[in-house]
Amino acid sequence: MTATGTTSVIHPTATIGAGTTIGEFCVVGPNVKIGSGCKIGNHVVIHEDTVVADTVRIDDHASLGKRPMKAANSATTKEQELPPLTVGELSIVGTGVVLYRGAAIDPKVLMADLCTVRENVSIGRGTIVGRGVTVENFCTVGRYCKLESECYITAYSTLEDRVFVAPGVVTSNDNFVGRTAERFKHFKGVTVKRGGRIGAGTVTLPGVTIGEDALVAAGSVVTKDVPARTVVMGTPARKLRDVPVEQLLENQGWVDA
Amino acid sequence: MTATGTTSVIHPTATIGAGTTIGEFCVVGPNVKIGSGCKIGNHVVIHEDTVVADTVRIDDHASLGKRPMKAANSATTKEQELPPLTVGELSIVGTGVVLYRGAAIDPKVLMADLCTVRENVSIGRGTIVGRGVTVENFCTVGRYCKLESECYITAYSTLEDRVFVAPGVVTSNDNFVGRTAERFKHFKGVTVKRGGRIGAGTVTLPGVTIGEDALVAAGSVVTKDVPARTVVMGTPARKLRDVPVEQLLENQGWVDA
Amino acid sequence: MTATGTTSVIHPTATIGAGTTIGEFCVVGPNVKIGSGCKIGNHVVIHEDTVVADTVRIDDHASLGKRPMKAANSATTKEQELPPLTVGELSIVGTGVVLYRGAAIDPKVLMADLCTVRENVSIGRGTIVGRGVTVENFCTVGRYCKLESECYITAYSTLEDRVFVAPGVVTSNDNFVGRTAERFKHFKGVTVKRGGRIGAGTVTLPGVTIGEDALVAAGSVVTKDVPARTVVMGTPARKLRDVPVEQLLENQGWVDA
Repeated sequence: MTATGTTSVIHPTATIGAGTTIGEFCVVGPNVKIGSGCKIGNHVVIHEDTVVADTVRIDDHASLGKRPMKAANSATTKEQELPPLTVGELSIVGTGVVLYRGAAIDPKVLMADLCTVRENVSIGRGTIVGRGVTVENFCTVGRYCKLESECYITAYSTLEDRVFVAPGVVTSNDNFVGRTAERFKHFKGVTVKRGGRIGAGTVTLPGVTIGEDALVAAGSVVTKDVPARTVVMGTPARKLRDVPVEQLLENQGWVDA
Repeated sequence: MTATGTTSVIHPTATIGAGTTIGEFCVVGPNVKIGSGCKIGNHVVIHEDTVVADTVRIDDHASLGKRPMKAANSATTKEQELPPLTVGELSIVGTGVVLYRGAAIDPKVLMADLCTVRENVSIGRGTIVGRGVTVENFCTVGRYCKLESECYITAYSTLEDRVFVAPGVVTSNDNFVGRTAERFKHFKGVTVKRGGRIGAGTVTLPGVTIGEDALVAAGSVVTKDVPARTVVMGTPARKLRDVPVEQLLENQGWVDA
Repeated sequence: MTATGTTSVIHPTATIGAGTTIGEFCVVGPNVKIGSGCKIGNHVVIHEDTVVADTVRIDDHASLGKRPMKAANSATTKEQELPPLTVGELSIVGTGVVLYRGAAIDPKVLMADLCTVRENVSIGRGTIVGRGVTVENFCTVGRYCKLESECYITAYSTLEDRVFVAPGVVTSNDNFVGRTAERFKHFKGVTVKRGGRIGAGTVTLPGVTIGEDALVAAGSVVTKDVPARTVVMGTPARKLRDVPVEQLLENQGWVDA
């Protein structure tokens, strides 16, 4: 049995696991599957077919399983069939979060307030998606990453495991800045290799690869690839020094959990 | 007849067109006019007098027709009579969007999730207002513009048609940075002429004009006017070269739709 | 008596003052205290124990008194007992705002749409927290500050009275960028002394102090302390000149209200 606010509207085809609680004024659509031991706030909307695993916390005003909006004028959003949104066990979905149908969220992911994860995105186990972060469509985010508050991950980006993206980071994917039909063949986000770190308020240009365990200093503008284990700084960013040994990923003693 | 979630609260003076569907827990205020064939999500609030045209999509948790908030300490918000919010046909209003009374939205505008359009703003036909974008009060935005995710359009700005503003762009309007009574006479946003483009993560200072079809490279700080068809780059931004011919607006073959 | 939307769910232990109005589909939790003359919108959630003073305006979809989310992988959020959220009289809480339990908001504070104030934060009288602003945990914000739209105040920051933070400002608090156990001892936000001003789109590094009445020019990257009454500019920011006399705080004729 479940303790459900008497005001919520649950579709008869939805299934809800034992011990899950649902607040007031929620809407749970057709064929939604919610696991056991979840704690769902108020005014949460879970659209059709969404699958939420066990022990997930979802806060007020979150909207899960949203279908993409297609503008007449959009360069990258196409009409398509999308698999249902899946949210892994022990994940947390913050207040006002928007998760799209076609996103796949691993277990133990924290999605902080007002972040958005678009369609055709996967987020790896134990990753933190910070407050207000946008992960655009067609991105792959690895495990144990930290995407700090208000960073912006452009479409067609790949972040490997243990990547750190600081607050206010901006990334881009269109070297043609919205012009020429040619550009559609060249959209390319950023790639950050395992353990790469991008400092606060930086701007990274389309197609750039940040190497393994490399570090971009705060406030830099990154115009070309950054070699592994290298600190770059400035506008445009240039090599400053090697990453200090004690900061290397291999010296943190971190174990996947 | 309309298919309306039985839980919504519709004021008796509101009118709703044929074929429009309304989700659960919506609030539709006095004298609201909603056209036919609209698709309205859950927990949507449409405040009094708002006019929504035909075939508009409005997603969960959007709030339309909000009245401005007046802080004791505000420099630019005045108490005033405002005309009702109008939203043109075939427009899309994303999840958690906030549209103010006194905004006029043309047809075919996409307002992505969590964006805000303030009072005394007009948005032209076919424009995309990206995820999390803020268009402050007293702005004019032209037709077929793209304001990409998380860009910030300061009060008293003018963007002409076909303007492109990349993700994370910041604009400002107060050269006195909040000091002197003098400043109230000099508030001036940015002006971007037809086809002007502003790259990712740039900062543009108060009163600057970006010329027709000009381009500001990503990461720049723009401190003075940019001539037409010129690429500028750097801090402060200086001329780099002319805009490549194949990127000029006149060579895109774009037709107003 | 109160005029309350008949659809709202008010816990029997909540108290609501005379003349307060509450919109539709609100949720007011146990032991909440709401003063008199408040105007509360639709879909507002006020969590248990929250104290809202007299004459407060709260707009649609705001969520007050939220408990922190604890990620397995978080560096700075600890489980803790938190005092109830308090919101001072004549304050305004915008649409979609998220205020955490453990925040203390003085009277006459404006919190604009979609801003977030975390736990263990105090906001002084008459301050404006702009649209989309994040004030992270363990921050102190003084009186009559202006935190403009989309600025980001990192954890462990102190802003004294009359501080001005322009749109899109980014601050940071971790010089080790997420690596070494050492870093936990050194987390340090930014300090902005009385009347200090930070220009649009700037980035300020961890532990920096902006001096009394100092000014950081737009687009700068601030890597070290800024002396009082000094204008700094550039990447890294260097002294440009003294703050013009007419812009000094002492020459504004401002009186605390």
